[in-house]
Amino acid sequence: MFENREKRTELSDLGEFGLIEHLTKDIPHLNKSTIKGVGDDAAVIDSDGKKILISTDLLIEGVHFDLSYTPLKHLGYKAAIVNFSDIAAMNATPSQITVSIAVSNRFSLEAVEEIYSGIRLACKKYKVDLIGGDTSTSITGMFISITVIGFTHDDEIVYRSTANDKDLICVSGDLGAAYAGLLVLEREKEVFKVNPDMQPDLSDNDYVLKRFLKPEARTDIVELLKEKNILPTSMIDISDGLASELLHLCKESKLGCNLYEDKIPLDPTTVRLAEEFEMDQTIMALSGGEDYELLFTVHQLDFEKVRELQQEISVIGFMSDQEAGANLITRSQASVPLTAQGWDGMRRK
Amino acid sequence: MFENREKRTELSDLGEFGLIEHLTKDIPHLNKSTIKGVGDDAAVIDSDGKKILISTDLLIEGVHFDLSYTPLKHLGYKAAIVNFSDIAAMNATPSQITVSIAVSNRFSLEAVEEIYSGIRLACKKYKVDLIGGDTSTSITGMFISITVIGFTHDDEIVYRSTANDKDLICVSGDLGAAYAGLLVLEREKEVFKVNPDMQPDLSDNDYVLKRFLKPEARTDIVELLKEKNILPTSMIDISDGLASELLHLCKESKLGCNLYEDKIPLDPTTVRLAEEFEMDQTIMALSGGEDYELLFTVHQLDFEKVRELQQEISVIGFMSDQEAGANLITRSQASVPLTAQGWDGMRRK
Repeated sequence: MFENREKRTELSDLGEFGLIEHLTKDIPHLNKSTIKGVGDDAAVIDSDGKKILISTDLLIEGVHFDLSYTPLKHLGYKAAIVNFSDIAAMNATPSQITVSIAVSNRFSLEAVEEIYSGIRLACKKYKVDLIGGDTSTSITGMFISITVIGFTHDDEIVYRSTANDKDLICVSGDLGAAYAGLLVLEREKEVFKVNPDMQPDLSDNDYVLKRFLKPEARTDIVELLKEKNILPTSMIDISDGLASELLHLCKESKLGCNLYEDKIPLDPTTVRLAEEFEMDQTIMALSGGEDYELLFTVHQLDFEKVRELQQEISVIGFMSDQEAGANLITRSQASVPLTAQGWDGMRRK
Repeated sequence: MFENREKRTELSDLGEFGLIEHLTKDIPHLNKSTIKGVGDDAAVIDSDGKKILISTDLLIEGVHFDLSYTPLKHLGYKAAIVNFSDIAAMNATPSQITVSIAVSNRFSLEAVEEIYSGIRLACKKYKVDLIGGDTSTSITGMFISITVIGFTHDDEIVYRSTANDKDLICVSGDLGAAYAGLLVLEREKEVFKVNPDMQPDLSDNDYVLKRFLKPEARTDIVELLKEKNILPTSMIDISDGLASELLHLCKESKLGCNLYEDKIPLDPTTVRLAEEFEMDQTIMALSGGEDYELLFTVHQLDFEKVRELQQEISVIGFMSDQEAGANLITRSQASVPLTAQGWDGMRRK
């Protein structure tokens, strides 16, 4: 009865990034322990020299996950992993999480236990402690909010904003597979709707299904880079797709880039499924998202060291000055502007 | 389509505390930096000697708040305060928060801005930095998840489990007023439903309305106790009502208690409204909740020091051994077992 109904701007007009930027701009920091607030994969807090990384993610049924094809244990596992990945993206490893879950009375205790068993499995694998949380009923649907903490030293933190002109752009693993997995699940869901007795045909697609349903956080890459004495100059994890994340690095570092289409790492299953779904395989990698691979830049002098890790890491381009813009160099050697949707003039086969 | 529908235990059979305990029991800690996990107002993490406190709270529309009488700015303020209070309950002050908000398309940008303006106001007042978060759409309703961080030293942290037999039980401020405020708002909502043109009659009830809609976290009490060199032996904040919180201290410290009904601090407005609503004023204090006052125990030797703070702090009883049980000593000097609902044989006038 006290609501002010005068002016109304739709949230969809801003989009997620616009909204966060809008809501958190000009926030002054009152504590000298606050080193970095909103605007990277994690915030950075100082504790007598040692640095604390903290990040939080919200997962909502019907927005971020579909329970008709997401097993609850996988959901819990993935909810934890997504957060671990944010700490990896700062070049650190996670050590603690808090978990808040709200569920409607549609869910039983056994359902919530399944989610927790997934979270606990992820914690065990990544040696992370579950230290707190909150549970509540919701009116409808399921909400999971996880906050993750990691510790590191000042000189090891890698931000998004510190890439240099001519740095090499690197990515771990392969891209687009999680999106291919999602497409397979969506297809089977449609088949299931038409004929509920039909068993889902998931054969030969194990790899991409696992990539979507049970992704991993690349803390192993963080450790590998440390072993090889490679300190990335900037880093981000790939949750929204290669194109969107690379544009973040460019924007935050005030640089441009040249990304080579033929260097983007793809798994053969992803390539086959791109054919099956009549989609461009590069679009899958650029815009698919949810790969949770690490995208980072290194100094050119580290090229040989990175090449020794070519089983795990691909060099896919280099940073350039800001005026040159962010570009994709296609297989036919054309240079086209990179956009968060893939590239200008998105094509389908 | 992969859901396991074999066994089903209703969540309501466990209740909130039972659920958290059930889901988090036997969780091993793998990091030596994890000092205290689930089970107190905040978790405790070690960072080279300095201690980090972390706590998280989830607020859900229709469960924790009713937007028909909660102004959005107050909602944001309270969501932050509730978290600050958890850090105060560990005898520390908060320094950073992360905020995750999900809203349906029923809400405009201006609505979300209002919530943030409340959060920012609370941050400014308590010198806390907003360092991160997440925003998302929801299918229905509004969800706010806040995580708070505070720093302190090992020897200043006060847990729930460390009260001693014969320690004095103290409480800050007065109790039951937030619940009285809620009753007033619920009454006016009913009037409004019957006649939407009628203006709410909130006169003379400013104090209790403020206590419900815009509570404060008693970080001032934490500072006052430090100034007076009083280190509480145990502490908790009152979110669920005096009875429930005192039972937590008893259970965690493996003790009993004697709580004196006539010592429970009440504001005259609360007493008047208890009469108006034909409720027992003691029930309001014991079970009302959302007061966000601090309930703590001190050593008997600190009695004189606490008495000097009687404007702010009331001594309401003492801890006893566990076999004696948790008891309320009524105005008529009867000793009755204390329960989370108030006391056995809850009466109404």
